[in-house]
Amino acid sequence: MRVVDIIAKKRDGLELTAEEIGFFVRGFTSGEIPDYQVSAWAMAVLLRGMSTQETIDLTMAMVRSGVTLDLSPVAPLVVDKHSSGGVGDKTTLAVLPMVSAAGLPVVKMSGRGLGFSGGTLDKLEAIPGFNVSLSVEQLLANARQYGIALAGQTPELAPADGKLYALRDVTATVPSLPLIASSIMSKKIAGGAGALVLDVKVGRGAFMETLEEARALAQMMMRIGEGVGRRVTAVLSDMSQPLGKAVGNSLEVVEAVETLHGGGPPDFLEHCLIVGAEMLLLGGLASSPEEARARLLKTIAEGSALDKFRTWVRAQGGDVRAVDDLSLLPHAPVVERVPAPRSGYVAGIDAREVGLTSVDLGAGRERKGEPIDPAVGIVLGPKVGAWIASGDTLLTIHARNKVSATAARGRLLAAYIWSDEPVSPRPLVYKIMRGKLTARANAMPKRMNPTTI
Amino acid sequence: MRVVDIIAKKRDGLELTAEEIGFFVRGFTSGEIPDYQVSAWAMAVLLRGMSTQETIDLTMAMVRSGVTLDLSPVAPLVVDKHSSGGVGDKTTLAVLPMVSAAGLPVVKMSGRGLGFSGGTLDKLEAIPGFNVSLSVEQLLANARQYGIALAGQTPELAPADGKLYALRDVTATVPSLPLIASSIMSKKIAGGAGALVLDVKVGRGAFMETLEEARALAQMMMRIGEGVGRRVTAVLSDMSQPLGKAVGNSLEVVEAVETLHGGGPPDFLEHCLIVGAEMLLLGGLASSPEEARARLLKTIAEGSALDKFRTWVRAQGGDVRAVDDLSLLPHAPVVERVPAPRSGYVAGIDAREVGLTSVDLGAGRERKGEPIDPAVGIVLGPKVGAWIASGDTLLTIHARNKVSATAARGRLLAAYIWSDEPVSPRPLVYKIMRGKLTARANAMPKRMNPTTI
Repeated sequence: MRVVDIIAKKRDGLELTAEEIGFFVRGFTSGEIPDYQVSAWAMAVLLRGMSTQETIDLTMAMVRSGVTLDLSPVAPLVVDKHSSGGVGDKTTLAVLPMVSAAGLPVVKMSGRGLGFSGGTLDKLEAIPGFNVSLSVEQLLANARQYGIALAGQTPELAPADGKLYALRDVTATVPSLPLIASSIMSKKIAGGAGALVLDVKVGRGAFMETLEEARALAQMMMRIGEGVGRRVTAVLSDMSQPLGKAVGNSLEVVEAVETLHGGGPPDFLEHCLIVGAEMLLLGGLASSPEEARARLLKTIAEGSALDKFRTWVRAQGGDVRAVDDLSLLPHAPVVERVPAPRSGYVAGIDAREVGLTSVDLGAGRERKGEPIDPAVGIVLGPKVGAWIASGDTLLTIHARNKVSATAARGRLLAAYIWSDEPVSPRPLVYKIMRGKLTARANAMPKRMNPTTI
Repeated sequence: MRVVDIIAKKRDGLELTAEEIGFFVRGFTSGEIPDYQVSAWAMAVLLRGMSTQETIDLTMAMVRSGVTLDLSPVAPLVVDKHSSGGVGDKTTLAVLPMVSAAGLPVVKMSGRGLGFSGGTLDKLEAIPGFNVSLSVEQLLANARQYGIALAGQTPELAPADGKLYALRDVTATVPSLPLIASSIMSKKIAGGAGALVLDVKVGRGAFMETLEEARALAQMMMRIGEGVGRRVTAVLSDMSQPLGKAVGNSLEVVEAVETLHGGGPPDFLEHCLIVGAEMLLLGGLASSPEEARARLLKTIAEGSALDKFRTWVRAQGGDVRAVDDLSLLPHAPVVERVPAPRSGYVAGIDAREVGLTSVDLGAGRERKGEPIDPAVGIVLGPKVGAWIASGDTLLTIHARNKVSATAARGRLLAAYIWSDEPVSPRPLVYKIMRGKLTARANAMPKRMNPTTI
């Protein structure tokens, strides 16, 4: 088998065999296939595409390039969640304790923020002492003991993906559906997930800007997952405006904690209930979305979700006092209220601009490895569909200094679209796509129901 | 300007500016742009194509990556020729002395054989002592003194092309029309050619297998040449069967010398007359193809072409006695006559198979840098369209040993197609494409002609 023949085959739009893909992935993981051949192949994949079978084969070849976690000591079926990334997306911080408190143990590996998109690890690290660098053994031990554990991606899982992604990043080969889908799914499968809820964001503040793109990505990931026996549900959710109100690491922890207290922005709570309900359904802890939703609301009402959050923080070395005294979280020295420049309905808040402004403030990073400031960020006021009077608080900027706050103010004001006429609120979720395996599993109890037989 | 943005632009099928192409070519020549970015870009170019302007800009950026020869001390206008490569193509060996003897000085850089295609340097080196490694100064001095000089490509000319080609070779990005055209033209323009005859081969023994592909390549090279003020003529010639009868280095020298003597296979002589006539036309030494042809035939009839060949060989250190005593050229120890297995018309001789068989015999190389055997090869008998009686000589194999000859015999016999009905001979040339600049220059004398004003 010659590498150049494999590249030529993909260049000509032909389908690679599992053997060819396996040979290629082993070669570039070991370094035997040089980067210049891998990048030419990646560009051919981007422009020629891949069949479902090829994408599954690529995913599994990347899974086999490293170690695979066995989560069976934690639970018979561990349900993972994945967000394709967005602005103000602190869902994991609230949904993991809710789901865990509802009886479904959660073990998760997360990433860091990059560009306009924030990262769960950065958000959790805003809690003083919180340690996301758990060894695999610690991660599993915590999950067994507390039913909740989260760590950064370890390089032992799907190392081929890490290597390929680094190369794609500098060769303009990131935006390829099969490459994106196989990258995400290889990490999730290597991480031991038995079932998976994919939160695929759509809009200006997401990587997929149109519903068609998001649906295509979701479908491809579902096909990969189901192709290897994992039950997968995809939630296509809006990211045209930020999720919730807080954007910035410490500010997002505050919003997550408030939500676990029963407060927080209604859109964020609703999003957590939708994602969490799909996780409970996949995990077999509820037989309908309504039942799942009720269970999750109960964990908030009874305080068990907040208790689980405290347990989680303590278990990973965080200062649990900060959960109950949010003033112990990092605070920015400059907090500037931005009044509405006019009265009117908010017709749009450009999520990408808000995300990029938060990076400018120091809450995110443009390049991997750059340090971030946990304290800074933005708290939005009224969201799309709301009416606001001129001079009322449109948003609040949390900055390191006045200069930085002033720069952010101009940029943020320009991110709003106004209307004199009433505007409908944005839909929160466009579609919930439940996979064939899920549908089949859900259909089973109905067959046993005498009224339907 | 960011490299990844340039790759992304081409990936998306957009047109790169001259500045972007210049930046990219300078970067990869200096090594600042790593190979993995260059190969991703090359794959994007292959799959997305390039406009004429981009191809011209790429060509000139590669020209500017190194030194450019100034041939004005040799002649006001030096006409170069280029063959896209084929089997049995020893045209340069005969046509250079003919054209030079007709009064047009020739300075040329050539390449080596690779795969099924032979190389002029290898053929000339079959003459004992012949030195193709001339310095640029020697090359120009010889051209001034003798009106004929040929050397291997020096790495100082268009080094970007050498670097890019090496990478394309291992990343399945060779078969791209704009990359092929800019590669050829950058070397020719850097070599100082003022005008150029392109001999674009078509058929199984050529890189372009269809007339459409060959025409597209010729058109693109003409547009590049004319875009930078070079007059270009393209000859689309047949390479479905080998050119002439000899395939193999020493054997091809013999055929070229016989042709300069007035003998040699008629198809090969005719091809030399067509290519040579177009060179004389471009060089302004004839005003019609008929006149040019007559001048070339005169150089053979008077012996001046053969004299020029002797001068050439002597000037480059070759043993000139070998020109007049061909037995002094390398000879293979085993010469095996292959009789026709049947009576009939020859309907096809697969040029690629003949070329590959000559490589097996040792006349060519599969990879760059491999040594070759100048003595071995094949001499064909009757060509397509001829009738032959069973048992008459179909071809002769010149081999290192019996085993090698026997292997070649089977492969060669399988390369023939037979017919009981008469078969037309293959056309030699499909089309002569004279560029707009040529047409304009040729039109000028007519305007001055009183009968047309």
